[in-house]
Amino acid sequence: VVGLGRIGKIHAENLRYRVRGAKLVAVVDLLESVARNVGEALNVKWYADYVRALEVEKPDAVIIATPTYLHKENIILAAKYGINVFTEKPLAPNLNDAIEIYNTVKKYGIKLQVGFQRRFDPIYQKAKQFIESGGIGSPIAFIAIVRDPEPPPSWARDPKLSGGMFADQLSHDFDIARYLLNDEIVEVYVVGDSYIYEDMRALGDLDAAAIVFKTKRGLHGAIHATRRFPYGYELRNEVYGSEGVVYIGTNRDENIAYGTKQGLVYFGAPFFEKRWADAYLEELQSFINAIQSDRDPLVSVIDGLRAAQIAEACWQSYREKRPIKISM
Amino acid sequence: VVGLGRIGKIHAENLRYRVRGAKLVAVVDLLESVARNVGEALNVKWYADYVRALEVEKPDAVIIATPTYLHKENIILAAKYGINVFTEKPLAPNLNDAIEIYNTVKKYGIKLQVGFQRRFDPIYQKAKQFIESGGIGSPIAFIAIVRDPEPPPSWARDPKLSGGMFADQLSHDFDIARYLLNDEIVEVYVVGDSYIYEDMRALGDLDAAAIVFKTKRGLHGAIHATRRFPYGYELRNEVYGSEGVVYIGTNRDENIAYGTKQGLVYFGAPFFEKRWADAYLEELQSFINAIQSDRDPLVSVIDGLRAAQIAEACWQSYREKRPIKISM
Amino acid sequence: VVGLGRIGKIHAENLRYRVRGAKLVAVVDLLESVARNVGEALNVKWYADYVRALEVEKPDAVIIATPTYLHKENIILAAKYGINVFTEKPLAPNLNDAIEIYNTVKKYGIKLQVGFQRRFDPIYQKAKQFIESGGIGSPIAFIAIVRDPEPPPSWARDPKLSGGMFADQLSHDFDIARYLLNDEIVEVYVVGDSYIYEDMRALGDLDAAAIVFKTKRGLHGAIHATRRFPYGYELRNEVYGSEGVVYIGTNRDENIAYGTKQGLVYFGAPFFEKRWADAYLEELQSFINAIQSDRDPLVSVIDGLRAAQIAEACWQSYREKRPIKISM
Amino acid sequence: VVGLGRIGKIHAENLRYRVRGAKLVAVVDLLESVARNVGEALNVKWYADYVRALEVEKPDAVIIATPTYLHKENIILAAKYGINVFTEKPLAPNLNDAIEIYNTVKKYGIKLQVGFQRRFDPIYQKAKQFIESGGIGSPIAFIAIVRDPEPPPSWARDPKLSGGMFADQLSHDFDIARYLLNDEIVEVYVVGDSYIYEDMRALGDLDAAAIVFKTKRGLHGAIHATRRFPYGYELRNEVYGSEGVVYIGTNRDENIAYGTKQGLVYFGAPFFEKRWADAYLEELQSFINAIQSDRDPLVSVIDGLRAAQIAEACWQSYREKRPIKISM
Repeated sequence: VVGLGRIGKIHAENLRYRVRGAKLVAVVDLLESVARNVGEALNVKWYADYVRALEVEKPDAVIIATPTYLHKENIILAAKYGINVFTEKPLAPNLNDAIEIYNTVKKYGIKLQVGFQRRFDPIYQKAKQFIESGGIGSPIAFIAIVRDPEPPPSWARDPKLSGGMFADQLSHDFDIARYLLNDEIVEVYVVGDSYIYEDMRALGDLDAAAIVFKTKRGLHGAIHATRRFPYGYELRNEVYGSEGVVYIGTNRDENIAYGTKQGLVYFGAPFFEKRWADAYLEELQSFINAIQSDRDPLVSVIDGLRAAQIAEACWQSYREKRPIKISM
Repeated sequence: VVGLGRIGKIHAENLRYRVRGAKLVAVVDLLESVARNVGEALNVKWYADYVRALEVEKPDAVIIATPTYLHKENIILAAKYGINVFTEKPLAPNLNDAIEIYNTVKKYGIKLQVGFQRRFDPIYQKAKQFIESGGIGSPIAFIAIVRDPEPPPSWARDPKLSGGMFADQLSHDFDIARYLLNDEIVEVYVVGDSYIYEDMRALGDLDAAAIVFKTKRGLHGAIHATRRFPYGYELRNEVYGSEGVVYIGTNRDENIAYGTKQGLVYFGAPFFEKRWADAYLEELQSFINAIQSDRDPLVSVIDGLRAAQIAEACWQSYREKRPIKISM
Repeated sequence: VVGLGRIGKIHAENLRYRVRGAKLVAVVDLLESVARNVGEALNVKWYADYVRALEVEKPDAVIIATPTYLHKENIILAAKYGINVFTEKPLAPNLNDAIEIYNTVKKYGIKLQVGFQRRFDPIYQKAKQFIESGGIGSPIAFIAIVRDPEPPPSWARDPKLSGGMFADQLSHDFDIARYLLNDEIVEVYVVGDSYIYEDMRALGDLDAAAIVFKTKRGLHGAIHATRRFPYGYELRNEVYGSEGVVYIGTNRDENIAYGTKQGLVYFGAPFFEKRWADAYLEELQSFINAIQSDRDPLVSVIDGLRAAQIAEACWQSYREKRPIKISM
Repeated sequence: VVGLGRIGKIHAENLRYRVRGAKLVAVVDLLESVARNVGEALNVKWYADYVRALEVEKPDAVIIATPTYLHKENIILAAKYGINVFTEKPLAPNLNDAIEIYNTVKKYGIKLQVGFQRRFDPIYQKAKQFIESGGIGSPIAFIAIVRDPEPPPSWARDPKLSGGMFADQLSHDFDIARYLLNDEIVEVYVVGDSYIYEDMRALGDLDAAAIVFKTKRGLHGAIHATRRFPYGYELRNEVYGSEGVVYIGTNRDENIAYGTKQGLVYFGAPFFEKRWADAYLEELQSFINAIQSDRDPLVSVIDGLRAAQIAEACWQSYREKRPIKISM
């Protein structure tokens, strides 16, 4: 595991203790103190030098959880060594880098899985099965409401490094829309702006936007996303079909409420570490299984590339104020 | 009251029994049997001839609940007699007719209120007050999910007569977005199609669509609308602001649920007659009050015109597959 | 209609405008000004003298919505005139009066319906049908949570006049438990006290209590009731069976919520005038139908007597701190 | 960890990987194959012989997750060795055994924590803090609805071995009622029966019951419990106070719903392994902390004894059909 931020630590702990068939050989972080702490806590080797780690350990696979702008360099190095890669999303902050990654992966023939964990979440699995079984008739539209508690910190506030709203926040939704509709997004149109955070505006990112899209088979979708949500975390995805609707997600934690003269007060839904705990484990298990049975990962480099194409089209639509087609 | 369909009868009964300061003098329907039945049930005079009714009764005001394509003719006649008008929405099936109505109303100086009843609903009133009081900080976006149980019957399936999805179904949402954001919609973009109903496709209407819009002050909105919903009626409106969100509407009736091995099963939210019972009364009361105190109705002909402009822009966007600006 | 408080006025308006086959001939209230106002508003005759009203008008039926402690006198007088009676619940403040009413009704052979409107509510009708259709298998238990916003005002705070918590507040729940379980309550046990309202404690009433009961067929129930609820009105009834549960009622109004840094805030469910608007109409319609087709009312004097027996047993259990059997 | 059923395995894994300051030295199960499997999976020693495990390993503490009827023997042995004990609930299947455990623990001066994990659950922690902060004014009543998906399997169906409904299922609720009300339960009354499961009836256990209780300070409570719930798991606890209500728990999983012509269908709330995952970890952490800082566990042997006293009083009330006082 390379990059020991919040999500990197989750992956490392899962690999160390819970993923069947996996052996965590080492953890890596540029910050030696972080690498040492995590390594010692998990009782595995640690490195501050990624290149050296790869050379010494020669692992079957590497988990990349570094900042987005480092993914390309990290992935290409692993590919050259023939090491399989699980990388956090998005693949890269921009489409050009994503294409370069795609080409490198294809050239060296490694397996690459992208961290679109929703696909492995038990709730989304149920939804997918219900849709596939015809439960909602013919799928027609994907609808998403996405409200993060607040924008990401530090480097991730700069869209040149993180990919910004469309890559960093919404690649999950683009991917899950493709997955649930079983279709490709071929056109997007964006309205929105940076309304709240002055620093994000200065860096060129948005904090609230509506996106509509069309798919190859003529279906469509609408996403409304914001990067501030005062009382918690809200993520709702809906798939509307000719015979029904699947609703995923909620804006409250049903487990506790206070009824006082202020009204009946709920807290927000649990944030990502807790919401996706199962999914983070399952996606790694699936990745390890894919390697061991020598089959393609269920979410592979093409899915990362598609999300990058859609994000790039969103940026273009935002700049040029018109619908943008995505060539595939 | 002219036009004694479902909504016309609701208005007639409200005027007869509940609106303070109003006296229902007669009911009118082209179908003599309908007019007679309602007239006798309410113990008021009845006519099958609109012109004669106006000439004989010389009312202070007329309530128009006829099919949309008759509004223009009905309103212009009343205007010429100097009779104030409450008309059901939308003003007209197309923008040209709406403009003609607007000009006529202005020329003859009558008062005209459009039946956008949500503005008078206690729930929407609360939402409006909360927003105005700064409860959500600065409003940023309006989001709507609109799912009717099924498309309207008979003449209203023909968009040339009803105005179609954008005028017949969504003029409510365009109006309430303007109201809650306190802003004007200046650009729209539409994706969608007729996926389910072959006859509607043949007539040129849509049954599922996503609409994004921009406002004069730079805010935005997203609406997803469908005309089929298998288990009830779903209407959700949300206003997102820098400090919070107002959620309006629900997809279920909380009052009863069955927990069996099939799961926990809810019914849909109550449909329009029940959902808007209070609002239908309040809008008429407000109309009567406006006449008696000689002030403009709270929802006047300009609001009807705006909705018609937005609907027309949606149709154009749908045909031309590009964002359409609305000149005001 | 005799007694023109909140509920009396609802009944009068329903009879005047909405109940088919009924003709409201007069309204009566001891307070002449109240009687006159309501009479004039509804355009019917009015009386301040109940006896005279009966003698002059000789109605087919009378609606009694006077304070509980006057029911006996009002009903007996009507019975002697052979006039059918719809009376608000409870039948009387104590069991002796209820028995006297029961005997009088039987002696004079009039029809008497008690105002247990829940039985006529569309939601409870659905629940009843679902249970009867076997939807929950064999019914086993009735569970109720009852939270009024606050105790009743004026005379109704005195349990000697109103019947107190067990007759005034909970007779509805005893009746609906009998109805939904299709069984008789044969034993009760009460714990509770007057925790909040000093004046109610002084008058001998409770403001929070738990009641468990057994039925003739061996089923059981649990009711928790309170007479103060800071943010609204909460009434939940559940029937548990071998194959499922029916849930009725909610603690919030799903139609609006505010999401701010205080959390996600709901209002309470609508209070009784609004919650039971349909039921109040339906129960009168059913009463009028029963008279016109000369059949027993669906909720008759025996149901009022049963509720009085249960309430009396609750009072005895509260005083004697032991389970009390109800002989039938 | 002794006893490697579902909950034993959860504890073993938590101790092995997540509890800070703890070192899992061995796992024990009477079934050698079970012990070996778990031991190898966790890479720790394993025993099929509890006595030998204690003698060889001399641990600071032992986690007892054996069947309830073995707790006494397991605990007493550990106590004699001076080994601290964390034991699953209930302490014992009957009051006599619980008293013997209590006396032994006191005699040997070991620390004993009972597995009432709700106290350590983040949701219950919030509720407790809200109550303690005065958020609901003065607490007045505890209300619980408890619906397990189905009765426990194998030995736990025999109340002589498991303690039955009142000890095995409801000791959690008795404990949390004491905790949230900060009070002692001093009287109980029970109605209920075995309605569904013939084998449980034969063994003397109940499958549906209502319990009301009084507390030392004059508060009260109502619990309705069943041991079959067709679509999931439902656990609701409410504390009613003079100024508000805290609601804990839900009857549905808000994360997914299907809206089709069958209605809007939810699944049940997640069952215990998932619902209490955090709490199972926290209770062990708290236990380890208590040992290391040499202070009493937050839920100690007296809490186990209290639950046993209440359960015994419930059994007596059920048999003798009268309220039973609990002497303390």
